[in-house]
Amino acid sequence: MIKVGIIGSTGYAGAEIVKLIQNHPEAEVVWFGSKSFEGEPFASVYRNMFELVDEKCLGDNIDELADKVDVIFTATPQGLCSKIINEDVLSKTKVIDLSADFRIKDVDIYEKWYGIKHESPEFIDEAVYGLCEINRDKTKDARLIANPGCYTTCSILSIYPLVKEGLIDPKSIIVDAKSGTTGAGRGAKVANLFCEVNENIKAYGVTTHRHTPEIEEQLSYAADEDVVINFTPHLVPMQRGILVTAYANLTKDVTYDEVKAVYDKYYKDEKFIRVLNKDLCPETRFVANSNYTDINFKIDERTGRIVMMGALDNLVKGAAGQAVQNMNIMFGLPEETGIDLVPSSV
Amino acid sequence: MIKVGIIGSTGYAGAEIVKLIQNHPEAEVVWFGSKSFEGEPFASVYRNMFELVDEKCLGDNIDELADKVDVIFTATPQGLCSKIINEDVLSKTKVIDLSADFRIKDVDIYEKWYGIKHESPEFIDEAVYGLCEINRDKTKDARLIANPGCYTTCSILSIYPLVKEGLIDPKSIIVDAKSGTTGAGRGAKVANLFCEVNENIKAYGVTTHRHTPEIEEQLSYAADEDVVINFTPHLVPMQRGILVTAYANLTKDVTYDEVKAVYDKYYKDEKFIRVLNKDLCPETRFVANSNYTDINFKIDERTGRIVMMGALDNLVKGAAGQAVQNMNIMFGLPEETGIDLVPSSV
Amino acid sequence: MIKVGIIGSTGYAGAEIVKLIQNHPEAEVVWFGSKSFEGEPFASVYRNMFELVDEKCLGDNIDELADKVDVIFTATPQGLCSKIINEDVLSKTKVIDLSADFRIKDVDIYEKWYGIKHESPEFIDEAVYGLCEINRDKTKDARLIANPGCYTTCSILSIYPLVKEGLIDPKSIIVDAKSGTTGAGRGAKVANLFCEVNENIKAYGVTTHRHTPEIEEQLSYAADEDVVINFTPHLVPMQRGILVTAYANLTKDVTYDEVKAVYDKYYKDEKFIRVLNKDLCPETRFVANSNYTDINFKIDERTGRIVMMGALDNLVKGAAGQAVQNMNIMFGLPEETGIDLVPSSV
Amino acid sequence: MIKVGIIGSTGYAGAEIVKLIQNHPEAEVVWFGSKSFEGEPFASVYRNMFELVDEKCLGDNIDELADKVDVIFTATPQGLCSKIINEDVLSKTKVIDLSADFRIKDVDIYEKWYGIKHESPEFIDEAVYGLCEINRDKTKDARLIANPGCYTTCSILSIYPLVKEGLIDPKSIIVDAKSGTTGAGRGAKVANLFCEVNENIKAYGVTTHRHTPEIEEQLSYAADEDVVINFTPHLVPMQRGILVTAYANLTKDVTYDEVKAVYDKYYKDEKFIRVLNKDLCPETRFVANSNYTDINFKIDERTGRIVMMGALDNLVKGAAGQAVQNMNIMFGLPEETGIDLVPSSV
Repeated sequence: MIKVGIIGSTGYAGAEIVKLIQNHPEAEVVWFGSKSFEGEPFASVYRNMFELVDEKCLGDNIDELADKVDVIFTATPQGLCSKIINEDVLSKTKVIDLSADFRIKDVDIYEKWYGIKHESPEFIDEAVYGLCEINRDKTKDARLIANPGCYTTCSILSIYPLVKEGLIDPKSIIVDAKSGTTGAGRGAKVANLFCEVNENIKAYGVTTHRHTPEIEEQLSYAADEDVVINFTPHLVPMQRGILVTAYANLTKDVTYDEVKAVYDKYYKDEKFIRVLNKDLCPETRFVANSNYTDINFKIDERTGRIVMMGALDNLVKGAAGQAVQNMNIMFGLPEETGIDLVPSSV
Repeated sequence: MIKVGIIGSTGYAGAEIVKLIQNHPEAEVVWFGSKSFEGEPFASVYRNMFELVDEKCLGDNIDELADKVDVIFTATPQGLCSKIINEDVLSKTKVIDLSADFRIKDVDIYEKWYGIKHESPEFIDEAVYGLCEINRDKTKDARLIANPGCYTTCSILSIYPLVKEGLIDPKSIIVDAKSGTTGAGRGAKVANLFCEVNENIKAYGVTTHRHTPEIEEQLSYAADEDVVINFTPHLVPMQRGILVTAYANLTKDVTYDEVKAVYDKYYKDEKFIRVLNKDLCPETRFVANSNYTDINFKIDERTGRIVMMGALDNLVKGAAGQAVQNMNIMFGLPEETGIDLVPSSV
Repeated sequence: MIKVGIIGSTGYAGAEIVKLIQNHPEAEVVWFGSKSFEGEPFASVYRNMFELVDEKCLGDNIDELADKVDVIFTATPQGLCSKIINEDVLSKTKVIDLSADFRIKDVDIYEKWYGIKHESPEFIDEAVYGLCEINRDKTKDARLIANPGCYTTCSILSIYPLVKEGLIDPKSIIVDAKSGTTGAGRGAKVANLFCEVNENIKAYGVTTHRHTPEIEEQLSYAADEDVVINFTPHLVPMQRGILVTAYANLTKDVTYDEVKAVYDKYYKDEKFIRVLNKDLCPETRFVANSNYTDINFKIDERTGRIVMMGALDNLVKGAAGQAVQNMNIMFGLPEETGIDLVPSSV
Repeated sequence: MIKVGIIGSTGYAGAEIVKLIQNHPEAEVVWFGSKSFEGEPFASVYRNMFELVDEKCLGDNIDELADKVDVIFTATPQGLCSKIINEDVLSKTKVIDLSADFRIKDVDIYEKWYGIKHESPEFIDEAVYGLCEINRDKTKDARLIANPGCYTTCSILSIYPLVKEGLIDPKSIIVDAKSGTTGAGRGAKVANLFCEVNENIKAYGVTTHRHTPEIEEQLSYAADEDVVINFTPHLVPMQRGILVTAYANLTKDVTYDEVKAVYDKYYKDEKFIRVLNKDLCPETRFVANSNYTDINFKIDERTGRIVMMGALDNLVKGAAGQAVQNMNIMFGLPEETGIDLVPSSV
């Protein structure tokens, strides 16, 4: 059994890792880290876990943790992982960081967009960007995984093949994204109260959202040139799910079949990516509570653009599920172990 | 592998059976019955199943079905199962009926509350009322299971021990129940449109809801006298979940510990029933997408009454989950096989 | 023009008063009190008021306020009004208190249920319980109004006529109530986050909710004997609305028409109370954003009980609307002035 | 009093007209047309109107209607108004059509996008496109108003000033729009059931939605050249509200103040259009149940684009409210009469 430690187990992403590992035949959580609830039973914070998890929440002493577990998930605010990580920890255990600390290779860009100083830039280079379907080869031998953001996973998976194959102009990409409210976290803020979120939709972080440079960096690798995009996130009155609607100019006349062939080239054998049948639009409900990403596209001959769409569950493929997928790769397990979840029917 | 046939696989309960059997290591669905969608791919109706279920929907020819499967689930409107069932079918296969056709032993009561003629009363006697935690001994050898209703499962499990042990006056029982909207089915009715259900709560079927005699019959067995109750269901703007708040007069002075001991007597070893810690109220979210029923109670010394509360997922323990639990019992499998689902964290 | 001051204008009830007074032809808000947002523009807290309210939030100096306004609404936590009120204020201005401070005549009961010491019991006697349809005669000349609670308004209006006329046994009353989440206030608490409230229903405050003694006191006046009830509130994933489902034993055989006549006796001429047609159940959506209370009942001959149902908008008739209705009575205006709102169609 | 007739009074837009006219001091509904509910009391279909509307639903005999009313609102499916309208009707009464029949001047474009034959093209020319803030001068003397679509009103108002002033490249416009579910109508369709819409977001009508040519036509007038855009609508699990997020390339370097000045040039004196303070994003809740449109923008210097955002209530400014605003203009009333509604606080 893989011994798992979680720092930040009582946030929504952390709790989702706990839930997934409960289902995982080869892993078990032995450290439920949570500064806010240290000393309290985990199941008193997440009462769905009554009689399923007996342990109490522990602190975030990563050095002690490194001696006890095979892998540490950090599901913590930006800046925490980079502050506490060190060579000793990485020499003893693997780390999968769900924050943004190691996602961006250029530390200046990180510090500019996140507004904080990076406290361990020496590990940025070795960190593998854990977008499994694209980087799984590098993941196998990694000590440190930068688990991708929710918006970024959905955006990149939806756009990547067309950039890579040169079908769209990278300078023309616009990503309009919509997220459920678990993405806003479990902090007690007025803006996230039921009565403030329900019956409402809004954009936020317009032109300044931190997932922007992360999407740009990955698409730049695919385009082999610098990509700058517009990215606009929106908050939707639902709990789970991200929908991406992305727009770009086609670089040439293409047919549906030609574009479909490009997506299939990259995703045909990917269990967790489903390119839908013609004219069907991805819906977040059809991937809820699963690790799937549903993708499709529509060519607009009138404007010469293509509309690319993707949907995933922000807590699963957008966070905890992909983190476990990375763990499976790192430990040589079949990739779907413990996360082969059938999406909700309703 | 147990071969499963479903008649009515495209309703919400039927689709939940499909989902659960996808996860079941010892069973597989080989017949996706659906009159409404006959000939169409199941995954075109439930697009969450894209690439997971390839089969097309079939009809409801139960005789043909009986030759092909080990167990038939009928997730169909009242009156359908009793119309098509026959001795030949029961001699070849097991039937788990999710409708009300075989739940009530007194056919006159059935016909009065449901307003339809029962077309095969000869099978009522042998049908086992499939409330697993109470009737599992009879289920083992049954050919025909009457799978309990959603409201009834939650109501009976919440109240049963106190009636059985004589702690409450059976004549004083009032059940005020609240259900998510999947309980209203997938039919295209104006009353169930998003804009009619959302931001609203209402009672319905006041004094006339069909689950009333079902609850009464089962509680009468426990009380060993005729029980007549008030039962009021309400529609709540959420998808899954039933919450029961039940009231009754205590027959004597009792302490919290005494009542707790009574619940524990019946449920301590029941995996799927969780009697919560003192003063915690069941919430539907903590059992969502699982087969658990959460139960608790509060003594009101001022009025001499006890408030009993229960929560379950109406599509799982209230329908498909309990149906699979019954299947497991009938086929000698561990009861939790395929339905050992961790409830949602959020 | 009536000059209005509000202490606590940035809570949900306070903001609803602001909205209603915006529509009121004979009143205007001249003091937007809010300790939390003192100095900030009201419209930066409630952005619906952009370009409609230009004023900044002020403090809660009631003595200064008393010199400037004709009426003060206190939409504040329990204990605040009784702490700051004094004879000088009451000699200069009228006070309508939306908290519970002056609702309960027996100060011991107040202090027991609310767990705080009452700091101005000398004003309790003169305070008028502002349930307009029942107490409007006393309201006319009052200096201090105790504006009823949301649950209590709905509960009392639904039950009062039958208690008053002796049709039900007051000892048998059980009130099962359901509320939208604005009732939980605008405080930043994890329990009220969108992701904690949505897709969930739960009871809370079982046997201990503070509205219990308030309902009991008013029904005791009607029954002319001490009434003790069970009251159970539930939190529903919607913003506005309270639904009450109440149960009681009938004291004699009665017909639908006889009970209807009793309700009509009290409510036929009441604009804001609508006794629905036979067999229709009140729904919160049909009174949303209005000052109406919809009421109906169902006799259960099987059990000898009657089910009484009521629905209102907790922020309007359950708080701000009734407060303005009281203001209108106190100032000799037609009762519906400014609150003659058509409920939402959808 | 203006006598109002409504054909299609029981759809969501029609019922909203009924509600608004209830509040209107100078108008009254005298004909509640509804083919589906002919003969039934209007208040049995919309129970919010109990005791407020006593009339029964009538048919759609427009000739009879023309003799009885001063203005007819047609809130009906596409093709109905153009089928029943005639010169005699227009000579007797004014018609405000909430369908698309007279919005598009080029009948070929109408027939292509709507897939139906236009049955009275002879009235297209005289019909005034009733976007009040832009066309009110023409509205004054019109007999026939083509009331704009919900998406189009929001899109055009958000984009119009920048196109008109040449600040953005009309060829680069992309409109990503999100709508509440009342926009999908009150028809009994599975896709609009609560359990299919809730906890979900999806795009639909990608590249083919019928509001596309309507937006294009109006923006073409502003640009004085043919404008072709991408328009993608999305369905959001809420009842009311449209949010538009639109993208375009700036034609030159501009500052925030310069762009703000352009919006102010067009909207500073418009009561129902609020250009928000810098960096605030429009939210649908802040305009709910009102006739306001909230607008703002953000310049993205990195990409050279501008993000334009608008929010309105699809049933009010997006349908019934604008229709009444047009009626007010046509009858010489102050434009805000009866629709001067304060948006919901929560």
